Amino acid sequence: MAQRSGFLSLGAFLYPSGHHIAAWRHPDAKADAGIDFKHYIALAQAAEAAKFDLVFLADGVGTRGDDVEFLSRTAHSYQAQFEPITLLSALAAVTQRIGLVGTVSTSFNEPYHVARKFASLDHISGGRAGWNLVTSSNEHEARNFNRDHHFAHAERYERAAEFADVVTGLWNSWEDDAFLRDKASGRYYEPARRHVLGHKGKHFSVQGPLNVSRTPQGHPVVVQAGSSEAGKELAARTGEAVFTAQQTVEDAVAFYADVKGRLARYGREPDDLKILPGVFPVVGQSESEAKEKFEQLQALIDPVVGLALVSGLTGGFDLSGYPLDGPIPELPETNASKSRQRLMIELARRENLTIRQLYQRVAGARGHWQVIGTPKQIVDQLEERFRQYGADGYNIMSPVLPGGLTDFIALVLPELRRRGLFRAEYEGSTLREHLGLKRPVHPAACARPAASTLAAAA
Amino acid sequence: MAQRSGFLSLGAFLYPSGHHIAAWRHPDAKADAGIDFKHYIALAQAAEAAKFDLVFLADGVGTRGDDVEFLSRTAHSYQAQFEPITLLSALAAVTQRIGLVGTVSTSFNEPYHVARKFASLDHISGGRAGWNLVTSSNEHEARNFNRDHHFAHAERYERAAEFADVVTGLWNSWEDDAFLRDKASGRYYEPARRHVLGHKGKHFSVQGPLNVSRTPQGHPVVVQAGSSEAGKELAARTGEAVFTAQQTVEDAVAFYADVKGRLARYGREPDDLKILPGVFPVVGQSESEAKEKFEQLQALIDPVVGLALVSGLTGGFDLSGYPLDGPIPELPETNASKSRQRLMIELARRENLTIRQLYQRVAGARGHWQVIGTPKQIVDQLEERFRQYGADGYNIMSPVLPGGLTDFIALVLPELRRRGLFRAEYEGSTLREHLGLKRPVHPAACARPAASTLAAAA
Repeated sequence: MAQRSGFLSLGAFLYPSGHHIAAWRHPDAKADAGIDFKHYIALAQAAEAAKFDLVFLADGVGTRGDDVEFLSRTAHSYQAQFEPITLLSALAAVTQRIGLVGTVSTSFNEPYHVARKFASLDHISGGRAGWNLVTSSNEHEARNFNRDHHFAHAERYERAAEFADVVTGLWNSWEDDAFLRDKASGRYYEPARRHVLGHKGKHFSVQGPLNVSRTPQGHPVVVQAGSSEAGKELAARTGEAVFTAQQTVEDAVAFYADVKGRLARYGREPDDLKILPGVFPVVGQSESEAKEKFEQLQALIDPVVGLALVSGLTGGFDLSGYPLDGPIPELPETNASKSRQRLMIELARRENLTIRQLYQRVAGARGHWQVIGTPKQIVDQLEERFRQYGADGYNIMSPVLPGGLTDFIALVLPELRRRGLFRAEYEGSTLREHLGLKRPVHPAACARPAASTLAAAA
Repeated sequence: MAQRSGFLSLGAFLYPSGHHIAAWRHPDAKADAGIDFKHYIALAQAAEAAKFDLVFLADGVGTRGDDVEFLSRTAHSYQAQFEPITLLSALAAVTQRIGLVGTVSTSFNEPYHVARKFASLDHISGGRAGWNLVTSSNEHEARNFNRDHHFAHAERYERAAEFADVVTGLWNSWEDDAFLRDKASGRYYEPARRHVLGHKGKHFSVQGPLNVSRTPQGHPVVVQAGSSEAGKELAARTGEAVFTAQQTVEDAVAFYADVKGRLARYGREPDDLKILPGVFPVVGQSESEAKEKFEQLQALIDPVVGLALVSGLTGGFDLSGYPLDGPIPELPETNASKSRQRLMIELARRENLTIRQLYQRVAGARGHWQVIGTPKQIVDQLEERFRQYGADGYNIMSPVLPGGLTDFIALVLPELRRRGLFRAEYEGSTLREHLGLKRPVHPAACARPAASTLAAAA
């Protein structure tokens, strides 16, 4: 295998008080971080000063669950926090270079609204917007949108694929040079540079054009997060970055090769899509300090919360009737997120975990890869996956915020830079440029001979 | 009639290059203002420095029309500009006191998304968000949302009323003191202070709760813009401010009395709703300078644009077959915005205008009230309507931006202040406080005896 060189990408995955389920109870945490705009300004500006590629926001269009005994004991489950589009737009005004990636589900939205808001954000931010396209697999979200149930897995992905096509089509409503704005002649735009989509599909009928001009990045970066078969195929067809979760380097390398290998059939190059696994780092000056930090958080997990979390991640199956210190029972495959459920169960079987051990394990990184140790130990692992083509970069899921992010910046980044794995300065100004993604050429501009060619032919 | 005292409210209605249809062609205009975030920052900060109550953004969820010969000659019709939620959120980060009011239609949205985004904006801005609730009457918007036609007038308002109920209900998902965030006990919120909406209606089924906590203003200010019978009734039931258009002081006084008179039947006080007509001011140091400024803009109107605009404002009726210098023909009443159509036709009949004169007239303020003259002349008119209870304040529709707004601030505001009609400093910090609107008490808090009452009874 070739020794891989170049820089890896880094995202700062912001979650109110931190990604650890008990983060809000940590002595240093801001418990009301979810509605504290100043908290997010500080995080985004710190990530930008450290030259991160992007900040990343997850989302839920509703509280996840209805077990109030659980919900009233957690700051997770999307109960009281900013909506991503409003938050990213506000952050755009107080940052200059860092990318702004937000999650919006295709299940309970209209493509026109989504295309328009991200296009608007791309203009406001000067080319820093990214849309994390997800599908929703939560009944509680469905009930906020006139439905009793969420869409079944296959239908959800079929809808998502059509949704992505419509959004991309709308983003191509105008060519880059469509707007003449010629005060003398009165021509505001060139009619031939305007393209009406006229989409009529199974799930959507959308006429267009979008009422936002083509954006600084050509269009916002499309990020995806599904790791199921349908999710990987959708990513290969339309994704430009994939946010994923693998526990081992072998799984990471296999996932990487699998997704990159699918690109060619859509006429795409391997570099047209970046793979950015989530990583949950707990860093200390010594290994024992790192472990103590982690144990301090683990001790704050309320058992009611831990048990409910495992239940949610294994497809909604209720584990509360089983002994906490016994093994995970056999679980039926459900209609919920299949890849996440499989990850959980494989983890428990591989390490022979009890329910209590599983909840302690997943409560931390909620199924993502956790690395605990000194800066050197952490960078060894980050470097290994990058060099072996298991990742193009990482989405950093700080256990507690802001402390986990500032620790990562102060302790881990210098070691990454010392090894030549991360840039010291931004090299571009847009999110695409940070990630090394090409700016998409408008389809009509591809088809049309260049002016110089016409001149030469005349 | 009692001589009215107190301050009037002022909104800065931002429209990219200005409200005049030919504004973008003006020598001082920024023709690409619609996607220039710095332009909007400068406008919002200028309005804030002048102590305006709010900035106001209109909206269209799609280009209005499909006549490309017309559309390609105008910067109006919502073809290439920021989406309001993203723009207001970004402006929230670079302003401190001014209110942020954005238009979102109830026709092609889901109430959960709308409630959530405005609640989030209210938190981000520290209590400065306002939602201008409108219904959509444009076929071209409908076609972007899986429909061939927009909703008929009655159905549109029925849907809007239910939509408003759902949004308000979602905003009451949490009581002010619901979130305990008690690190020691692990209680994140008090379950009894959480309220699940469980709405099942004709147009919407929305379970709730909203996943944003109760906002600084209790809930964002609800603004409305309909002047039809159904629109006035909806405003009386749920509106806290009304943006309207009357040509004469008599009509303004009648509208004011009509809407305020409807409040009692919903258990509301006259001061619970503010009436803010739009006004299109052209100010000069002398009357002749003001008129010259106006004529300079009028001369820039392309006849193709003027004619199409009149057609749009009279319900889509095509006037292009009629002589430009002849009278307005009899027009059938359409399903489109009735109040706007009636205003246009009454104006033409009253002043015996030709089609050309009508398009010149409405092209300026697009059916709104235009005042042209010296600061004294303009303030005489603003004062008259305010003192006679025809308005609680005004939404200022600057002909060209930024020049029209900075002129208003430099020339008109000092005269308003000299007469004691406008504040010199902000007196509160939220939009509600600026407008003199009460902060809504949560319904459950109303129903529950206060702790002190319980203590006294014990």
